[in-house]
Amino acid sequence: MTYRAPINDILLSLNHGAGLAAAVAAGHYGDFDADITAAVLEEAGKFASDVLAPLNKVGDEHGIKLDNGKVTTAPGWPDAYQRWTAAGWNAVSGPEAFGGQGLPLAINAACTEIWSASNVAFGLCPLLTLSAIEALDAHGSAELKKVYLEKLVTGEWTGTMQLTEPNAGSDVGALRTRAERAGDGTYRIKGTKIFITYGEHDMTDNIVHFVLARLPDAPAGTKGISLFLVPKFMVNADGSLGERNDIHASGVEHKLGMHASPTCTMTMGDKGGAIGFLIGEENAGMRCMFTMMNQARLGVGLEGVGIADRAYQQALAYAQERRQGKAIGHKGDGMDPIIVHPDVKRMLMQMRSMTAAARTICYATAVALDVSVRANDAKVRADAAARGALLTPIAKAFSTDIGNEVAYLGVQVHGGMGFIEETGAAQHYRDARITSIYEGTNGIQSIDLVTRKLGANGGASVWALLDELAATIKQVETSNDPAFGTTGAKLRDAHAALERASKWLLERLASAPNEALAGATPYLRLFGATLGGCMLAGEALAAKANGEAEPQRYVALARFFAENTSVQAPSLEKTVTESAEAVTGADAVLAG
Amino acid sequence: MTYRAPINDILLSLNHGAGLAAAVAAGHYGDFDADITAAVLEEAGKFASDVLAPLNKVGDEHGIKLDNGKVTTAPGWPDAYQRWTAAGWNAVSGPEAFGGQGLPLAINAACTEIWSASNVAFGLCPLLTLSAIEALDAHGSAELKKVYLEKLVTGEWTGTMQLTEPNAGSDVGALRTRAERAGDGTYRIKGTKIFITYGEHDMTDNIVHFVLARLPDAPAGTKGISLFLVPKFMVNADGSLGERNDIHASGVEHKLGMHASPTCTMTMGDKGGAIGFLIGEENAGMRCMFTMMNQARLGVGLEGVGIADRAYQQALAYAQERRQGKAIGHKGDGMDPIIVHPDVKRMLMQMRSMTAAARTICYATAVALDVSVRANDAKVRADAAARGALLTPIAKAFSTDIGNEVAYLGVQVHGGMGFIEETGAAQHYRDARITSIYEGTNGIQSIDLVTRKLGANGGASVWALLDELAATIKQVETSNDPAFGTTGAKLRDAHAALERASKWLLERLASAPNEALAGATPYLRLFGATLGGCMLAGEALAAKANGEAEPQRYVALARFFAENTSVQAPSLEKTVTESAEAVTGADAVLAG
Repeated sequence: MTYRAPINDILLSLNHGAGLAAAVAAGHYGDFDADITAAVLEEAGKFASDVLAPLNKVGDEHGIKLDNGKVTTAPGWPDAYQRWTAAGWNAVSGPEAFGGQGLPLAINAACTEIWSASNVAFGLCPLLTLSAIEALDAHGSAELKKVYLEKLVTGEWTGTMQLTEPNAGSDVGALRTRAERAGDGTYRIKGTKIFITYGEHDMTDNIVHFVLARLPDAPAGTKGISLFLVPKFMVNADGSLGERNDIHASGVEHKLGMHASPTCTMTMGDKGGAIGFLIGEENAGMRCMFTMMNQARLGVGLEGVGIADRAYQQALAYAQERRQGKAIGHKGDGMDPIIVHPDVKRMLMQMRSMTAAARTICYATAVALDVSVRANDAKVRADAAARGALLTPIAKAFSTDIGNEVAYLGVQVHGGMGFIEETGAAQHYRDARITSIYEGTNGIQSIDLVTRKLGANGGASVWALLDELAATIKQVETSNDPAFGTTGAKLRDAHAALERASKWLLERLASAPNEALAGATPYLRLFGATLGGCMLAGEALAAKANGEAEPQRYVALARFFAENTSVQAPSLEKTVTESAEAVTGADAVLAG
Repeated sequence: MTYRAPINDILLSLNHGAGLAAAVAAGHYGDFDADITAAVLEEAGKFASDVLAPLNKVGDEHGIKLDNGKVTTAPGWPDAYQRWTAAGWNAVSGPEAFGGQGLPLAINAACTEIWSASNVAFGLCPLLTLSAIEALDAHGSAELKKVYLEKLVTGEWTGTMQLTEPNAGSDVGALRTRAERAGDGTYRIKGTKIFITYGEHDMTDNIVHFVLARLPDAPAGTKGISLFLVPKFMVNADGSLGERNDIHASGVEHKLGMHASPTCTMTMGDKGGAIGFLIGEENAGMRCMFTMMNQARLGVGLEGVGIADRAYQQALAYAQERRQGKAIGHKGDGMDPIIVHPDVKRMLMQMRSMTAAARTICYATAVALDVSVRANDAKVRADAAARGALLTPIAKAFSTDIGNEVAYLGVQVHGGMGFIEETGAAQHYRDARITSIYEGTNGIQSIDLVTRKLGANGGASVWALLDELAATIKQVETSNDPAFGTTGAKLRDAHAALERASKWLLERLASAPNEALAGATPYLRLFGATLGGCMLAGEALAAKANGEAEPQRYVALARFFAENTSVQAPSLEKTVTESAEAVTGADAVLAG
């Protein structure tokens, strides 16, 4: 089973659901030539189908090997990585001054979906490099950029993000890795990091680690964390590689999924301390991390979309081929393909509609992040930044929840074959499982949404978005297209539920924070169900208006989502606003 | 992490939620001495904790090996099986005439949960033997029973159920395995079966296969299927083992989970045909299969409950121990255990409440099946049979959906550690995945619920159950216990939604069957959410009335379920009644 990038769906989503076309038309993308979008994505789709997709199962089966500090990736992987950088895919959205193509994040978001769909464990490596690029570009000194940035942008070297320690996971502020001033402007780092993705591998000559550590005189908690660049090999003045730095992979994890991606324990300081270079200011490491968190979280959301689409494509192909039972009214011998059965159709529509909704939410986040840095008008930039900040936790958590749910259904469509590893459906299910955990668990995304994004400006970002969604709902209602079924009514109910739940939470954020936090997860789901429904409806309207081929397909898809997912909004609202006592009063139950 | 059977919860659920105490009091259990229930379950819990639970991870890691037709199970497994039979656990509900203890199915249901929680891959073996016992006891000849039944009841030999073939999965009627009359009253079976659980293993001297096959002159489809008993080793007149029969394991599957349970491809006829003995009449094999389907499906539902409880216990222990972050209002240094965070509490309450609801639904199914054969009064038996038939697909599908959802949350509570296999949370997640597929996929359970159970008697079984649930809801409302929060209102809404959705489906079963089938899955979920909510509320009321220690714990649990799961009923109703067009009109979307 191969993968084919759904270019038409992606373009409709990007241009109309996510608003890229309107933002370009409004001049917010400067001189970006939107005509190249389709061509770039077509090429990305080809590379994904030809090079990455065939290695997905190989990577899962072979996994990686750690031997004496060296990690060997699966057969074919180093070669694929060379082809990746040679084709320029690592540099799509990188800064032009350092060898990047400077294309919008929105384009790269679609590419990230495509890489994740074809081979999520492979795509994870450049995703992390991208975060490293962002941190270095925004906060690194000119000298550091000169030595490292172009190599990272082209992908000649990869980057890692090293935050987690055994006692510092979600609570980064608890980390203990030490950094001491060496007196020459550099630092010596000692400590152990865990769960370091691609912390060691054989695909590039060098690896550039970005390590959070604490100076001896640092304040406690997150205010005492600094960010350091720690190369695997030191770089000589002429750019050649020098001595091996004192950072080593001392272990790799045996994981549920993502087998091809090495998850390393990194040890620094066996020989006196790894040489590190400060990024930004001392004790300001968390600010540097936050800079790149939006993009990294969006990237993980796109992994959810990608895995979902791959699982969908595989399940669809199986359902079209596998014959069991007969359709109602079937005459004569033989069996029908299982796609004729309403329950199988329901599963496939659920998969496709949820994937489409998550896709557009992610792309819309990317457009907002683009506009927040590209627009000329400061107000436009500020509004877009607020929109991007609001959407990021939803893009991350809703999309990865959906990635898991869709992969679950993908297994289910396969029946007993889905449980057999050879089939491949189970790999998507296993791989997806980490996406709702890393880059901030989905619970933490929900808390971020409620406390920092909803709460930050008295709800202003939410009200602005709700106004836009209301306009879309009105368009659905006035379209008088019977194919929309009850879409308009479902979205209107969902919109009202989201508005009420938002107000309820805002009222409690200061006065009863535990009650607000108790509702964070169902609130994020409510938000995604409403937002996704409105966006799919907007895409359907655009497809009709723009003379898309078979626009009614998009109407049917939007309808299904509204009647199956958005319809849950009023129930979710009740859970947010009425079950807080049941959560805060849980102690007696959980103790027994 | 070990497992401790939650005896208090189980007893409350069994006696009050599931109605065992009332059925015993009404005399429907004859001379069964209900006082022994607690003692049996305590002993089962000890055996599970001491013998089975420690082998769960060993089995997952070692898996099984197939070499030249012989399967080797994981270290310690054959010994544990000997202890299992020696302690009499295989014979709990077996017929007394053949060495069984004749205890109610309800008691065995609680035991099945306990075995599944401690070691689901182990418990699967006796679960299949139980089905074999049932088929043989109900339909086998006296001679066959004499030779095989006691050995199966004690567990000295195990049984398999052989239905599936590469082209006959959900559609059993498509099977092609041939049975020819040998002329001496026996048959010769030739063919290949796949996905045969414990088709070969090293835990017992003999294995008794129950094979569905087709006679040369059999009608097409399910009306031409016969059931045969095919021993691995022939049995001599003196009971000793004779020649090896012509049935062999020719392959084993590499599966997502349940690694310790051998899933075999069985080949019959390499040497002329396996000797088979007819069970029941020729071409009446499907009837024999249906006999045991209720119990087997209930058994799988209990696997869902068991895995869910194990995942919950492990997540709870982790949440009490793992420290990250601080509770709101926490003063001073240090971190709190993550159980203080509302979002973690929510996950744990979700896990516990869903597990409890699924448990009681399963136990209630067992009580109904018990009463359907044990009660003196024919009307009582018939009503119980209808109730058991109605509840069985819900017990199977709702409970296994929940098993998967709870295991998902169990991983989530562990954060990054949950994705690491060593932690053990991922095993539950992997193991659970098959339960919603085998013994009839959950989609097929939903179709069974709508077409055969709701539709069979014009909805009479459903209306009778709804009347009972309404009485419970009234009790909640009149209890005036503020700790119930909005439980009464949520259950009343859910009850009304279930009633309306049932009527809507009934009206369409004949006239628009595809529309009815399109709503089958959300209907089953709606049913479980309503039924489970009412049952937990009933348990809470009973806990209060009976002077249970800390009865408010059960009130809080029931409330959480009502406000988080039952609350979804009105949305699910809308999906059932309003999204059928979106499903039946899916073809255009799925084609593009």
